Amino acid sequence: MRDVAIIGAGMIPFGRRDEDSLMDMLAYASLKALDDAGLGDKSVDAVYVANMGAGILQHQTSIASSLVDRLSLLPAAADVVENGPASGGSAVKNGLLAVASGYYDLVLVVGGEKMREVTGWRATDFVATMTHPQAEYPYGITLPGMGGMFTRLYMEKYGVTREHLLAVSLKNQEMGALNPYAHVEMTLDREGIFDSPHAVVNNPLAADPLHLYDLCPVSDGAAALVLCPLELAKKMAKVPVLIAGFGQATDTHTLQEREDPTDLKAVTLAARQAFEMARLKPGDIDVAELHDAFTILEIAESEHVGFFKKGEGGKAAAAGKTRFGGQIPINVSGGLKARGHPVGATGVAQIVDIVFQLRHELPGNRQVKNARYGLTVNFGGFGNNVTAFVLKRVEP
Amino acid sequence: MRDVAIIGAGMIPFGRRDEDSLMDMLAYASLKALDDAGLGDKSVDAVYVANMGAGILQHQTSIASSLVDRLSLLPAAADVVENGPASGGSAVKNGLLAVASGYYDLVLVVGGEKMREVTGWRATDFVATMTHPQAEYPYGITLPGMGGMFTRLYMEKYGVTREHLLAVSLKNQEMGALNPYAHVEMTLDREGIFDSPHAVVNNPLAADPLHLYDLCPVSDGAAALVLCPLELAKKMAKVPVLIAGFGQATDTHTLQEREDPTDLKAVTLAARQAFEMARLKPGDIDVAELHDAFTILEIAESEHVGFFKKGEGGKAAAAGKTRFGGQIPINVSGGLKARGHPVGATGVAQIVDIVFQLRHELPGNRQVKNARYGLTVNFGGFGNNVTAFVLKRVEP
Repeated sequence: MRDVAIIGAGMIPFGRRDEDSLMDMLAYASLKALDDAGLGDKSVDAVYVANMGAGILQHQTSIASSLVDRLSLLPAAADVVENGPASGGSAVKNGLLAVASGYYDLVLVVGGEKMREVTGWRATDFVATMTHPQAEYPYGITLPGMGGMFTRLYMEKYGVTREHLLAVSLKNQEMGALNPYAHVEMTLDREGIFDSPHAVVNNPLAADPLHLYDLCPVSDGAAALVLCPLELAKKMAKVPVLIAGFGQATDTHTLQEREDPTDLKAVTLAARQAFEMARLKPGDIDVAELHDAFTILEIAESEHVGFFKKGEGGKAAAAGKTRFGGQIPINVSGGLKARGHPVGATGVAQIVDIVFQLRHELPGNRQVKNARYGLTVNFGGFGNNVTAFVLKRVEP
Repeated sequence: MRDVAIIGAGMIPFGRRDEDSLMDMLAYASLKALDDAGLGDKSVDAVYVANMGAGILQHQTSIASSLVDRLSLLPAAADVVENGPASGGSAVKNGLLAVASGYYDLVLVVGGEKMREVTGWRATDFVATMTHPQAEYPYGITLPGMGGMFTRLYMEKYGVTREHLLAVSLKNQEMGALNPYAHVEMTLDREGIFDSPHAVVNNPLAADPLHLYDLCPVSDGAAALVLCPLELAKKMAKVPVLIAGFGQATDTHTLQEREDPTDLKAVTLAARQAFEMARLKPGDIDVAELHDAFTILEIAESEHVGFFKKGEGGKAAAAGKTRFGGQIPINVSGGLKARGHPVGATGVAQIVDIVFQLRHELPGNRQVKNARYGLTVNFGGFGNNVTAFVLKRVEP
């Protein structure tokens, strides 16, 4: 395998983007990453588009073909990669392996989703299309519903409290408010959403025991990366970021089939594969972007990837260990909770954020000092298909 | 790049499969390919699912996650790859590069589509979702409409006649009738659909100058392959089939933007890339599966890949040069015209058919004698994203 590095990264602000089509967003993010890569007269050999819902939400297929034309990248090869909310991770994986194989040198990976075209139950229903087509979807289970049941089990088994969940929520919205690309720009007020009598109104139950502010928003957005062989990256980029490790694992499609539904086996496995490939340990990581679609997931993933022992993640969050400046800063971007979760974009956006960190180009209130190693976890389905990446700063 | 070979191939009969869900079909084809590969206690590392329309047709996403669970292949990595009607070719490409990179050893690629859930204009509309979202789809253009206009231009520029188109149609349905996996099992009667006064009823105009029997049917179906490094394949398979060459190229999304709309640049480029990688020439190929969604496409592709000069493809077809036993047998399977065209399955099915040919395991009335090299062309959009593969028999 050739070593593969990232030489370009870009994203557009997530949120409501009523004026932009899906294709607009994919194009804008791509242009930012291509511009960042500074390809000069070089052209991209292949494009991977991460997207989950263009068929359902925009009644479109073949969007990769449309995008390469829009970007004047013809005759570059172009495919769409779909793996639910882990589509981004899967697209980066296929870009990685394409360059690693030696077949392609310059690959653009872009993820995007325009979700706000549907609202209310239609948005929930769209997301639920990732549940099991026979065993789950027809019975009306939703992703927040799964998140609620998972949270209850985790609370009972590991003593996670609402205080722990709140710590994740407050932290990620606080950081998101500093991130110009984040969907949710407001910080949360502990008093208003937790302590006061008004909390029941301000932060209502969404899926017991998850409240409104335990959930990520429904967002539009796109993010993009340019990959190439490390040797080429050293010539082209001031600070290349090596994709040092990658892992992907699946688990039962339905939660109910898992012997212990609190055990996110695919997270453990994907992260282990990524660490093994990178020859690193969880303790080596300086900054991580975990898939906090629900606050409980950040806590559970922080344990499953090996930052904390099982049952310690909630306490660690409440103790500030995962805050900016803490032992292992998690979701300095604001995470899915505040940056937003345009499903096809998320896995790519997580890596974009880590690239910014490892290149040391963020403002002081968000830049993890001397960050050298980063981890991302992108969580498909309810943990049935998970990708993990270990990224490494290549010193100039 | 590691050399990559095919050690398992399987498909299920295409056609109307009202009893089977999309997941059923994907599973059945996968099991046939896995069984054919004879993996013993080895397990698959990764799965690629080619599918275009599950979101629109089945209101499902994340079908790769569902499939690995259904097949008990956990924790294998699993992604969906979409590139319209060339989704199959794109999925095989990503499986190929994943094994070539050295990251994965055993990869299952399966393509499938359940299209007959929609009929009439809904089927035509589903297929039209691959047209340009701004410049084509809103104006009501359909794929048969594009096929008709393309045919007219090709006739005018190169002197292709309805007699030439008929030759393709008759040949492919004649061969399809011998193929137990084909959707359309009847042979066509030249008198009934062309010569007699009843032809106007039996074979009505679909999109002038294309008649009903110039078009492929709307089919359900699935096909699968198992890939691994050539060195491993030599130990595991009696007759491995090497993926000797691969190419993929894009062209303008809209036909109207092409300087010469009869010039299928992406076909030329994809085939050239595949031949260059394989270090072979068109004249080396013993048997080919081309993407005859419309009869004109088989003729045009036979020229663009280099079997015939521009303007000679139609005459060659009428002269029997592309028949079984002819100079270069094309679509011995019956092609999309008779085997059927479940869009996500097609690119995989083409390779499955070539594998059967190169392993010399077909009955005498379909087996191309001593076939050593095969070519497939999988045509996405209206030629805006094309994949080509050169396959090579590895002598036992």
